Amino acid sequence: MHNLTMMTDLYELTMMNGYLRHGMKDARACFDVFYRKQGDMTSYAVAAGLEQAIDYVKNLRFEAEDVAYLRSLGIFDEDFLAYLSNFRFTGEILSVPEGTIVFPNEPIVRVIAPIMEAQLLETTLLNIIGHQTLIATKASRIVQAAKGDRVLEFGLRRAQGPDAGIYGARAAIIGGFQATSNVLAGQMFAVPVGGTHAHSWVMSFPDELTAFRAYADVFPHQCLLLVDTYDTLGSGVPNAITVFGELRARGIEPMGIRLDSGDLAFLSRQARTMLDEAGFPNAKIFASGDLDEEVIWDLKAQGAAIDVWGVGTRLITSMGNPSLGVVYKLAAQEIGGSFVPRIKISENPAKVTNPGIKQLLRYYDKRTGKALADLIALEDEQLTGGQPLEIFDPEHTWKRMTLCDYTARPLLTPIFERGELVYAPPTLAEISAYAQQEMDSFWEEYKRLHSPHRYKVDLSPKLYALKSELLGQRRG
Amino acid sequence: MHNLTMMTDLYELTMMNGYLRHGMKDARACFDVFYRKQGDMTSYAVAAGLEQAIDYVKNLRFEAEDVAYLRSLGIFDEDFLAYLSNFRFTGEILSVPEGTIVFPNEPIVRVIAPIMEAQLLETTLLNIIGHQTLIATKASRIVQAAKGDRVLEFGLRRAQGPDAGIYGARAAIIGGFQATSNVLAGQMFAVPVGGTHAHSWVMSFPDELTAFRAYADVFPHQCLLLVDTYDTLGSGVPNAITVFGELRARGIEPMGIRLDSGDLAFLSRQARTMLDEAGFPNAKIFASGDLDEEVIWDLKAQGAAIDVWGVGTRLITSMGNPSLGVVYKLAAQEIGGSFVPRIKISENPAKVTNPGIKQLLRYYDKRTGKALADLIALEDEQLTGGQPLEIFDPEHTWKRMTLCDYTARPLLTPIFERGELVYAPPTLAEISAYAQQEMDSFWEEYKRLHSPHRYKVDLSPKLYALKSELLGQRRG
Repeated sequence: MHNLTMMTDLYELTMMNGYLRHGMKDARACFDVFYRKQGDMTSYAVAAGLEQAIDYVKNLRFEAEDVAYLRSLGIFDEDFLAYLSNFRFTGEILSVPEGTIVFPNEPIVRVIAPIMEAQLLETTLLNIIGHQTLIATKASRIVQAAKGDRVLEFGLRRAQGPDAGIYGARAAIIGGFQATSNVLAGQMFAVPVGGTHAHSWVMSFPDELTAFRAYADVFPHQCLLLVDTYDTLGSGVPNAITVFGELRARGIEPMGIRLDSGDLAFLSRQARTMLDEAGFPNAKIFASGDLDEEVIWDLKAQGAAIDVWGVGTRLITSMGNPSLGVVYKLAAQEIGGSFVPRIKISENPAKVTNPGIKQLLRYYDKRTGKALADLIALEDEQLTGGQPLEIFDPEHTWKRMTLCDYTARPLLTPIFERGELVYAPPTLAEISAYAQQEMDSFWEEYKRLHSPHRYKVDLSPKLYALKSELLGQRRG
Repeated sequence: MHNLTMMTDLYELTMMNGYLRHGMKDARACFDVFYRKQGDMTSYAVAAGLEQAIDYVKNLRFEAEDVAYLRSLGIFDEDFLAYLSNFRFTGEILSVPEGTIVFPNEPIVRVIAPIMEAQLLETTLLNIIGHQTLIATKASRIVQAAKGDRVLEFGLRRAQGPDAGIYGARAAIIGGFQATSNVLAGQMFAVPVGGTHAHSWVMSFPDELTAFRAYADVFPHQCLLLVDTYDTLGSGVPNAITVFGELRARGIEPMGIRLDSGDLAFLSRQARTMLDEAGFPNAKIFASGDLDEEVIWDLKAQGAAIDVWGVGTRLITSMGNPSLGVVYKLAAQEIGGSFVPRIKISENPAKVTNPGIKQLLRYYDKRTGKALADLIALEDEQLTGGQPLEIFDPEHTWKRMTLCDYTARPLLTPIFERGELVYAPPTLAEISAYAQQEMDSFWEEYKRLHSPHRYKVDLSPKLYALKSELLGQRRG
């Protein structure tokens, strides 16, 4: 990754210059990262991107050439440019761990720092966290549709640039994919890589059978043959069966075939029958080609005989919803040594922010271990003690429920304190295992692809009262 | 950008190993990059990404650690790994210059190289060219909708990772945007950067008027005020007018206001009236917030009083169509020292490829200077001489037209020859000017957003005959 210090919106820098000029350099502010309900991502999201966000913050540094470039724009004060030359992050960051299941409006990352520092982080944190959370979530939906089948990430060639391919592959693994075709992602993140051959391989030999034999000759133990170059059922599958027989005569069992076009429901069932009748019931059928959770859901409903799914374009771009609506909102500001809560008003009630320095709490049923509800609370509230707790819907306050016999877990975890990294990022394999455990802690009803039940994300009584008070003041 | 050598699909490497094992190391192959008709991109595309593709090819090199990683996968031959250690690109690449208007199925990039080298390039070329062409095209559509208004790129925070933000900003400039908020893109590509302040600035001061005064104090000559933090018409615009009056008393004219939410058609007209009546007819109205070509088209149709458009998420992700369907297809293969054309058959006629080593020719009307038609031709055809030329629709061959009084231009330009770069990439400003000239060379009918007229992309008689012959053989 580039050094991303300069990868910011210009207005972060103009505001920083403004804060410096107005003597607000050392006054701290608290910002929250969260996303708003939209499209596919309405039900839940899988948080991802923290590791790259940490790298970004650790490496924040304006080089001399950066400062020279900014000076050349002719809009900044010299003392601001001098400040940038010595810039480093000195604040505090909390975040949910990667792989955590989160919901709209919940703080995923919380930054408390001198406002100039906190402001600078906005654009890049949103870029990194927003992108990876988007793809991990899309991946999670696809994995759910595949109901336990293996799912592989094939999207690199159609990704929105190199990073989208690399970090998209990483996010797909967090979302539950088992492997990627992306060799660099495999190398960087120690994840399994997979893939065999393209149509061009078949076209490079005099005929399909020769091409299949040539492939089996080089990779007898990874013999997965792409059967749709000319005629899937007329030549591809029969030629594959011929080569599989030759392999077996050498004592080697074939891996299977891949379908990449045509009616996958029909072709896979036909191919399955042909493979079974030829004595290869264990040869797997891989499918690829414009797949996503809806197509996989449909294919499985039609009884497609597909064992492994290769998903590319529609995962790696999160087609249908290619951006998570992540925002970075001021929640509190230090004035005269203490924090004053801030609220952003909007005519659209869904866009009114939650004020104050907050924690995110998740409540679990002690009997089942399943998540019951989340509470966005003020940081200084004691709500994890186990005493019966009445929660209520912040929009329809008559909807109330009392939690008993619960355990509670704060989700926001310290990452940076006084500018120092205090968190040891887990490996991708560990993140992936944690994400699986997170998914398992929610009832199916909350996660299902179509018309999911709405998981309760309520405000603590104190936060609700604070918000109501600030809204009332604004009205007055 | 990373060294992208390892950023490839695993199957490129397994195929390369296979070609080596089968003695096909030195046999050359010709591959074409093109895109298929789809969604928004049906009418035309603006080619982009060549400069980054060149960097990629120039820097191709497997480091010792890369080879060690590949060895650890346990699937590759030692002589293949030795080959990779010494790998460099030795082939030929032609490409249309960045900013060229291209159409579905036209070769945008053509690679002729030993098949192992040509195969390796597939994934990354598609990633880079596909992404930037997608965004440049989306940008071009947005610029058309804005009909001459200034359009600014604001998408970084919602882009699919850092590269998508950086190279997306670059592509937006090629597509006709005037500036970006992305400071790193500004620094890397010498393009204008823009942006002023966010809602958080307003919220950081005791009240909106104080915040506006503070901003005007620091940036009197870039005084663009965001007026929708609390109440656009009730407080935002009136407070801005107050501050603009104070600025004028200092002899400085304000830049204007920015609207970022609400009904932009209504609010902009009201704000325009208020600004005009207060004596600020030259104060500009900037608008941002979920804009794209359709929204801008609609707002202009409603008479919105917007002067400058800031476009973010929907540009930078090409929302609605987040991936260009770019492919890399084998077109010819060297056998016994001469090239044999190759064709990929599909039950879907639109997916049958064009065989042979090809050039892309564009014909212009000598009188108007406007483009008449494109011809995909075999490289050795002489079709630029000026003699009357009958062209015909390759699907409906009775649709014929004779070109007279034309000039012809081959669009594919040499980039690499024998592995050496023979092309001097223009600056981004030069590319942007060329792209504008390209757009001007097409009649409006071909470019319009809704129901564009189909521009003729025909096959030369020789290519048509070759394709028919190969299809006939395959049938036989």
